[in-house]
Amino acid sequence: MEYAASRLKVVRPSASAAVSLNAQALKAEGHDVIDLGLGEPDFATPEHIVTAAHQAALSGKTKYPPTQGTLDLRAAVQAKFKSDNALDYATDEIIISNGAKQVIFDAFMATLEPGHEVLLCAPYFDSYKNIVLVIGGKPVVVPCAEHNGFRLTAELLEQSITQSTRWIILNSPSNPAGAIYTREDLQAIGEVLARHPQVLVLSDEIYEHIIFDGGVAHSFAAVCPALADRILTVNGVSKAYAMTGWRIGYGAGPKPLIDAMIKVQSQISSGACSIAQAAAVAALNGPQASVTLFREAFERRRNLVVDKVAGIDKLSLYPPGGAFYALIGCKDLLGATAPDGSVINDDTDVAKYLLNEVKVASVPGSTYGVSPFFRLSTATSDTLLAEALNRISAGVAKLRF
Amino acid sequence: MEYAASRLKVVRPSASAAVSLNAQALKAEGHDVIDLGLGEPDFATPEHIVTAAHQAALSGKTKYPPTQGTLDLRAAVQAKFKSDNALDYATDEIIISNGAKQVIFDAFMATLEPGHEVLLCAPYFDSYKNIVLVIGGKPVVVPCAEHNGFRLTAELLEQSITQSTRWIILNSPSNPAGAIYTREDLQAIGEVLARHPQVLVLSDEIYEHIIFDGGVAHSFAAVCPALADRILTVNGVSKAYAMTGWRIGYGAGPKPLIDAMIKVQSQISSGACSIAQAAAVAALNGPQASVTLFREAFERRRNLVVDKVAGIDKLSLYPPGGAFYALIGCKDLLGATAPDGSVINDDTDVAKYLLNEVKVASVPGSTYGVSPFFRLSTATSDTLLAEALNRISAGVAKLRF
Repeated sequence: MEYAASRLKVVRPSASAAVSLNAQALKAEGHDVIDLGLGEPDFATPEHIVTAAHQAALSGKTKYPPTQGTLDLRAAVQAKFKSDNALDYATDEIIISNGAKQVIFDAFMATLEPGHEVLLCAPYFDSYKNIVLVIGGKPVVVPCAEHNGFRLTAELLEQSITQSTRWIILNSPSNPAGAIYTREDLQAIGEVLARHPQVLVLSDEIYEHIIFDGGVAHSFAAVCPALADRILTVNGVSKAYAMTGWRIGYGAGPKPLIDAMIKVQSQISSGACSIAQAAAVAALNGPQASVTLFREAFERRRNLVVDKVAGIDKLSLYPPGGAFYALIGCKDLLGATAPDGSVINDDTDVAKYLLNEVKVASVPGSTYGVSPFFRLSTATSDTLLAEALNRISAGVAKLRF
Repeated sequence: MEYAASRLKVVRPSASAAVSLNAQALKAEGHDVIDLGLGEPDFATPEHIVTAAHQAALSGKTKYPPTQGTLDLRAAVQAKFKSDNALDYATDEIIISNGAKQVIFDAFMATLEPGHEVLLCAPYFDSYKNIVLVIGGKPVVVPCAEHNGFRLTAELLEQSITQSTRWIILNSPSNPAGAIYTREDLQAIGEVLARHPQVLVLSDEIYEHIIFDGGVAHSFAAVCPALADRILTVNGVSKAYAMTGWRIGYGAGPKPLIDAMIKVQSQISSGACSIAQAAAVAALNGPQASVTLFREAFERRRNLVVDKVAGIDKLSLYPPGGAFYALIGCKDLLGATAPDGSVINDDTDVAKYLLNEVKVASVPGSTYGVSPFFRLSTATSDTLLAEALNRISAGVAKLRF
């Protein structure tokens, strides 16, 4: 019997999750695999957050939370936006979801008609594309040049907008490239968008706290307040507080948009886990020392990867300005022959080769709409990361050109 | 600016959630409202479950869980199905979601093409209808007679199936009527379905443990094993363990269907909260004393409501066989005049009247596709429940006929 509807035929499961499954299978066979596939902090959730969750459960916060999220958490998010981003959102302009991913799903499900276009700045987080596809929208890829730090320019944007453009997704710092948009970048983008009132903006700021070299992550809504009624700001506690498993993301935007998203979420899953929401309140309102600690660790690792890659002939790396990934260029590996006689034709072959030959799991750039590259997550210990880069170096040295 | 896509125009937010919001607003104004709108156990989550969640968080189970659910929880669900329902599911035939609602959303999103019909046995849980609508399917209501305990019959089913029928939803014990299907009922339904191989069956068994008078809740897949490759069994820990806020539901069925649902869930939200999944493991594997305790309390309350309604002239109640609702017939109230001079025309008017006049929140039967009725949740203390029924009696007495 055929079960899957046609909308599923165009969707791929999350590529990084698939890589992790492959890596886990190899591990289960006894191989010593270093998994740099999944984008997940290797830290533990800070203890005060765990304690707050326990207290919440003990005190009976185990009942259905409102679909929109608890007022406590929406107030904490409101305060966070005010202090971190100089943004003024009312609590009824905020929605809490099962991870930032669901905020995005809710938004597109609430607004996309068939044929509506969503602009993706390549390299892009692959889930953006798949979410648009499963809902019946049309992802439109805008390739952003490496020499410009993989950033969208005003010119590129202007060329890409059509009458069918419904959304553009901005992501700074970005996954997978670690691209950082300056205030001027965002202003220029805002000027283009001002001329196209049909376009909504999803600003995914989930990596805002993971930014290097003293850089600043600007919130698009703060830079372009005139566009406020068209901006959905998306964020969450997963990356900043090592809370990926708790699944709490949030979005803020014009109330009618948030209301439409609540309507969608009311049919998908209702409110997010009440205990996890209490944990997120503690994360946002509590001591922020872990955020600094995590940021410093990720900067140290970024530097480690940049240094190591510089020492590997035939690989290149535009230094990421934030987030915890390295998008490594590998065009000089194409056409090379592996020890087993197979030829490396594309970046999927590169990722497969590295996994099989030196047991390092990475994700091919084609997943993110950019080739030939492969993405490493730097969310693992410095030691393992150094070892992984040594292995990759050894793997490259085994290729015949 | 118009945000909402056309798919939202046909969807109503959860009616019971809306009633609760109205009731809360009245409460906030200082009114002494008894809210019997929302279907939620009034008990606290048992302590050993809360402790297990805390231990999980302390021990670092705070990372991304697999989209399909943790193997620990899927193994616990597997064991539960075996011991409670005599069902043999492999762990890869099980999916964990953010509440049973998301299991249903995943299933329909994974399988429904535009125009596909989903049969709903009225009175039905209103979310079924809205989920089908938001995904672009076509809900087809099959009215089930009160004199038959609001149960679907083989004849009704046979008349309702078309070539476009993709799913039928069974729900025993049911929300809102507390209908219980006997083994013979399900066998007769299975015989009809055997002749219509295009139809999938969603058996929502979330209330299985809340069943009265020594009755037994039969799992459809156990009664009709020949249909196994077309049955999705849906359940969760919310109702049996007073864990509504934790948001953990699960589904089990043929692997290709589960795989398609994982693909959908991978785009919506990924895996459910890892801490809540650990809590659910403790619920399913731990002591089951609370389940019995809750069941007994709900039976006592069912009896209380049945007795009280029998004493109120002009109201009727087919005794619910399970779940924690009472679907009260109010056709004799139509045409009556309230003290303020307004006339009661339908069950929405009845619910509004009861909320405004005697401050009892209920949900009109039209929400569930059956009129004129109103639904009370019995998931509140015996004292409050008795008081609510006294108020309703007083409210009815104030009407002029």
